[in-house]
Amino acid sequence: MLPDFAQAISAPLQDFERHLLEASARIERWFRLEWQDHTPPFYASVDLRNAGFKIAPVDTNLFPAGFDSLSEDTLPLAVQAAMAAIEKYCPDARNLLLIPDARRRDARYLRSLRRLSTILRQTGLRVRYGSVDPALASPVRIDAGDGETLLVEPLVRRGFRVGLADFDPCSILLNDDLPAGLPEVLANVHEQVLLPPLHAGWALRRKSRHFAAYAEVARRFARQFDFDPWLVTTHFVECSEVDFVGGAGVDRVAAAVDRILRQARARYREHGIDEAPFAVVKANAGTCGIGVTPVRDAAQLRRASPAERQAMASGPSGRAVDEVVVQEGVRTVETVDGGVAEPVVYTIDRYVVGGFYRVHTQRGPDENLNAPGMHFVPLPFAASCHLPDHGESVEHAVNRFYVYGVVARLALLAAAVELEQTDPDPSLYG
Amino acid sequence: MLPDFAQAISAPLQDFERHLLEASARIERWFRLEWQDHTPPFYASVDLRNAGFKIAPVDTNLFPAGFDSLSEDTLPLAVQAAMAAIEKYCPDARNLLLIPDARRRDARYLRSLRRLSTILRQTGLRVRYGSVDPALASPVRIDAGDGETLLVEPLVRRGFRVGLADFDPCSILLNDDLPAGLPEVLANVHEQVLLPPLHAGWALRRKSRHFAAYAEVARRFARQFDFDPWLVTTHFVECSEVDFVGGAGVDRVAAAVDRILRQARARYREHGIDEAPFAVVKANAGTCGIGVTPVRDAAQLRRASPAERQAMASGPSGRAVDEVVVQEGVRTVETVDGGVAEPVVYTIDRYVVGGFYRVHTQRGPDENLNAPGMHFVPLPFAASCHLPDHGESVEHAVNRFYVYGVVARLALLAAAVELEQTDPDPSLYG
Repeated sequence: MLPDFAQAISAPLQDFERHLLEASARIERWFRLEWQDHTPPFYASVDLRNAGFKIAPVDTNLFPAGFDSLSEDTLPLAVQAAMAAIEKYCPDARNLLLIPDARRRDARYLRSLRRLSTILRQTGLRVRYGSVDPALASPVRIDAGDGETLLVEPLVRRGFRVGLADFDPCSILLNDDLPAGLPEVLANVHEQVLLPPLHAGWALRRKSRHFAAYAEVARRFARQFDFDPWLVTTHFVECSEVDFVGGAGVDRVAAAVDRILRQARARYREHGIDEAPFAVVKANAGTCGIGVTPVRDAAQLRRASPAERQAMASGPSGRAVDEVVVQEGVRTVETVDGGVAEPVVYTIDRYVVGGFYRVHTQRGPDENLNAPGMHFVPLPFAASCHLPDHGESVEHAVNRFYVYGVVARLALLAAAVELEQTDPDPSLYG
Repeated sequence: MLPDFAQAISAPLQDFERHLLEASARIERWFRLEWQDHTPPFYASVDLRNAGFKIAPVDTNLFPAGFDSLSEDTLPLAVQAAMAAIEKYCPDARNLLLIPDARRRDARYLRSLRRLSTILRQTGLRVRYGSVDPALASPVRIDAGDGETLLVEPLVRRGFRVGLADFDPCSILLNDDLPAGLPEVLANVHEQVLLPPLHAGWALRRKSRHFAAYAEVARRFARQFDFDPWLVTTHFVECSEVDFVGGAGVDRVAAAVDRILRQARARYREHGIDEAPFAVVKANAGTCGIGVTPVRDAAQLRRASPAERQAMASGPSGRAVDEVVVQEGVRTVETVDGGVAEPVVYTIDRYVVGGFYRVHTQRGPDENLNAPGMHFVPLPFAASCHLPDHGESVEHAVNRFYVYGVVARLALLAAAVELEQTDPDPSLYG
């Protein structure tokens, strides 16, 4: 199953891709050296968009679900990468506590959890599930709807450790991005490794910090490999203290949209791109891209109806949005089976371990595809992300995937830098 | 392409396999802890034989060729494993010098070298080829016969370093097992990493040391996981100062055969195996299993004709054999496409990265398959070596391959222990 690049890829982007392929050995060394200085998040998924004239990450998820949508062929890579990660954090680990997303009980999510557990167990760990829900008093068995069940147990604190009644883990793997705040039960866990750290959750994390770190990482990479960083980055502006319903700060958001569209138009002209740019307004803290609004004109915001404002104000999990990021929009030129598609790349530790296309047949190339009705087409991503085929043309899917793997790893490196910069105890990073 | 297990697997071996599958998470942790104490060889290939009542490694090659026979699907695993290895030895490595086997110029070997280079380049290394041949005065281009050529260059010493005229590598990867002795040009290279170390070459290495280390590793593993270590080991005896032509020491070899056959018969009775055991007599130092003689009766040796003695006396690369290992023979019950087959498992660092079946249609199940006329059937080994399918029966190929991966890694661990024990400077291992 290969994507259909219905629209041509621009000459500069083709040059860029060719350049990356030719430099692949140097690029791998560049990453190797970067990973000496920065610790990758335990796992991540990176949403990419390929506009035909640029390829950029639009979301870097540090609590990925969707492991069930990876091709089975790529599982050994995930196991091997997880082995390397576990060895780093807790080499004699026997027990791992996995904390699922408390808000998700759907069959698909449970399948992802099971797949993730399979990977972790195969690294030599006993895996059990714990819940941060203080209301959970006794173990509960969740029915996955396919005959299998998942036992989720209440967390138990013991001094600076957390575990289950009869289970003392070495590491705790969070699969809940904590939008509602830091759970009391996980505070001051000093004797165990929390993966990723608590400040990776949306209670503290901000997209603006990630994209700022990404801009810097991409700038360094682009300088090293001699290309225009705009080919892999997007302009963005952060707006805080916005009250979409009351109207406070909406003017600032509209002005930010104007500025982003102006910058994008200038770049489009510079690169000879004959189309109208758009901006997206997204919650600065929040998952899944829900609440992403594409805007082609700042007047759209200024003239928004009360109902539209209400919609903008409610972000992921219903939390009121008072901080937004206005970002240069990146349309996608890829289609799979006639549906608009965007690649999602999965990493464990520093390694690309797989990916899939997120496909939506009811959405346009400018729109957010992470929405009800989407489906997933696993791709044999891993092979090509590691091994470009220098004998094939740059347009060949194998080589495009290598480029995707590089851009996704730039986002991963940015997440590592972001987590260092936002760590409440920066002394840990010497 | 799956092997045909024409003959039934015995009940005890089935129990053993089931036991390993059930304990897979604990087994992976056991290996994780072992690799904290022991450094795996950079790469290896392990020949296994499955007799239907036992599965044992018969050769652990520390300078593997045959990378071209691995399935392409498993290459990303090899790249990822090589990344982990390079990071350990030389994290900022830019250049790697690969020293091919000086005696091999055949197309198949050159394909293997190219594949190995592809893997290494994808970890971010520049790879060039150097020759230990002191007679080579200038670079020589070797024709692989398929339009591609390989440039092999003379080594250049600079103090405690070795490289090429314009190439200063961080690591030197040997793919020559040095049966003829240690090349002068590689002596006292103290400022670079030699992989594997020089004493892994047949100039110093002895099979008896490997099998002794393996017996100890297997004994510990079997005690931990509660099974009879004979299911994965073979009895062996070392005989030195043997002169097959002159006759000196041949009696000792014959006595060793008697002893091994006696031991094997006792074990066969104990396990209810209704067949006659055999022994193999192999050179204690040497590659490829050439010179492996199956013996069913010590009288075979005592009565050997001068021509037969002459054959026994000439080991790999024509070197006279004066040290042998007499080992319990392991027939193979596996067939692929009607040919007798044995699995070969490849590792890089601590990871299983692929494998294939060595198949010979003209040889019997008791015989050495590593002989002219053999062919290779790549297998999607990697997936199953990492991920047993607990939903499938133990007879399922996927699960058998997991077991093979475990036994191969025991041999790998034994090689690590062996190289520590035989290191000329043991203080390095603290």
